[in-house]
Amino acid sequence: MSECIFCKIIDGEIPSAKVYEDEHVYAFLDISQVTEGHTLVIPKKHCQDVFELDEDTAAQLFKAVPKITNGIKAAYKPKGLNILNNNGSFADQSVFHIHLHLIPRFDDNDGFKSQWEVHGDDYTPEKLQEIAQTIAQEV
Amino acid sequence: MSECIFCKIIDGEIPSAKVYEDEHVYAFLDISQVTEGHTLVIPKKHCQDVFELDEDTAAQLFKAVPKITNGIKAAYKPKGLNILNNNGSFADQSVFHIHLHLIPRFDDNDGFKSQWEVHGDDYTPEKLQEIAQTIAQEV
Repeated sequence: MSECIFCKIIDGEIPSAKVYEDEHVYAFLDISQVTEGHTLVIPKKHCQDVFELDEDTAAQLFKAVPKITNGIKAAYKPKGLNILNNNGSFADQSVFHIHLHLIPRFDDNDGFKSQWEVHGDDYTPEKLQEIAQTIAQEV
Repeated sequence: MSECIFCKIIDGEIPSAKVYEDEHVYAFLDISQVTEGHTLVIPKKHCQDVFELDEDTAAQLFKAVPKITNGIKAAYKPKGLNILNNNGSFADQSVFHIHLHLIPRFDDNDGFKSQWEVHGDDYTPEKLQEIAQTIAQEV
């Protein structure tokens, strides 16, 4: 028996407010409702995070996202929508079954904001090529 | 001729620090480098945002993401990784060709943070079911 809370939600052992379901994907409201309509999209196949996600599951997961976001758009008419996926507790992942947060945006104080610091001035084009090659050779 | 800056990057008209490319997807460093290794993943097919994304392009886009994130992980050993996709200028989208930000995380002051306000106490289970049904009937 899985101890994963999201696997239990998929199985119906734990109740959820279901938004969408297909063969591969389950979507339900995040009980924290950072903004109204805040929805989680998860694969039915248990997978910890993006690093462990196989290609087919990744494809099936995101294939469902446009129709769900368009459902949120039609229902709530948000001004925008952020999709966030946190991998690792250091990056604020709290349930270790990969999930995409769909967060409709309504106003500047609606509960979600991403803070950015840009560091473009620290990087020459040559340095960027070096970083890209460091990553590319590992892909 | 497209005026889209990301289409020009795909076509090689504008240089980029390429991390990965396949038939459907192009990945390159974000010049703002919010954290070192900050990468953008985009579909080669021009599409404004998640609301306009067709299912096949969505699937192809995310299928490539695990291998790219694992490349970043192998190259940079981050403590975690956030994936962010902004849709609409209100939600901080600045280039109107859909893109996923892959942001490796290294320390608490590394350039990225998401601010959350949880509003779970404002929602009864009945209210959550009502919201879910409002969205579900539009999906």
